[in-house]
Amino acid sequence: MIKLDFDKMGGLLPVIVQDYKTNEVRMLGFMNQEAFLKTLETKEAWFWSRTRNVLWHKGSTSGQKMNVKQMFTDCDDDTLILKVEQVGGISCHKGKRSCFFKEIKDGKVIEGE
Amino acid sequence: MIKLDFDKMGGLLPVIVQDYKTNEVRMLGFMNQEAFLKTLETKEAWFWSRTRNVLWHKGSTSGQKMNVKQMFTDCDDDTLILKVEQVGGISCHKGKRSCFFKEIKDGKVIEGE
Repeated sequence: MIKLDFDKMGGLLPVIVQDYKTNEVRMLGFMNQEAFLKTLETKEAWFWSRTRNVLWHKGSTSGQKMNVKQMFTDCDDDTLILKVEQVGGISCHKGKRSCFFKEIKDGKVIEGE
Repeated sequence: MIKLDFDKMGGLLPVIVQDYKTNEVRMLGFMNQEAFLKTLETKEAWFWSRTRNVLWHKGSTSGQKMNVKQMFTDCDDDTLILKVEQVGGISCHKGKRSCFFKEIKDGKVIEGE
């Protein structure tokens, strides 16, 4: 079993979520060891919610689950990528496809779709 | 000027670096306020190195600078995406195009190119 470096951030790893077809980045979440193991076991995305301080099965209330197609770790084993199929097409709690719908241009924000 | 939420992670924001042409994720770094302002000012990627505890101008010693083409913030303004042109084509200190060259499959690691 792979050993990830959860120590650098006090038990959490940043996890980049990409659409498995388009490579669009949909969100960034955090996993603790339990969320990582649940994700491996269920092939759906689980995170640690830093705002609510709970294990978070993405989509369990909204229905917007993420089916994990592939998983990557980085050179230092302290960051993950999930390549997912987004059930329902919406990843952001603001009703957007991706959380990254705001471009920063000349220090100002331009909202996209 | 946009106000980012540096407080959630003790002064740091996770920053996803994507290739501006292919959308491949090349690395994840962290920025403090100074790295963010330097990046805006120079249109090259600056980070805060968590291992060395210094402001880090990516590529200043290796030559592998990142020219920032676009910048995005997320719904909570606590994570950034940089879309970059990678000078020299190599982003990872291990000589790889991307830091995410290891796939996790059935709990084991498979190394890619």
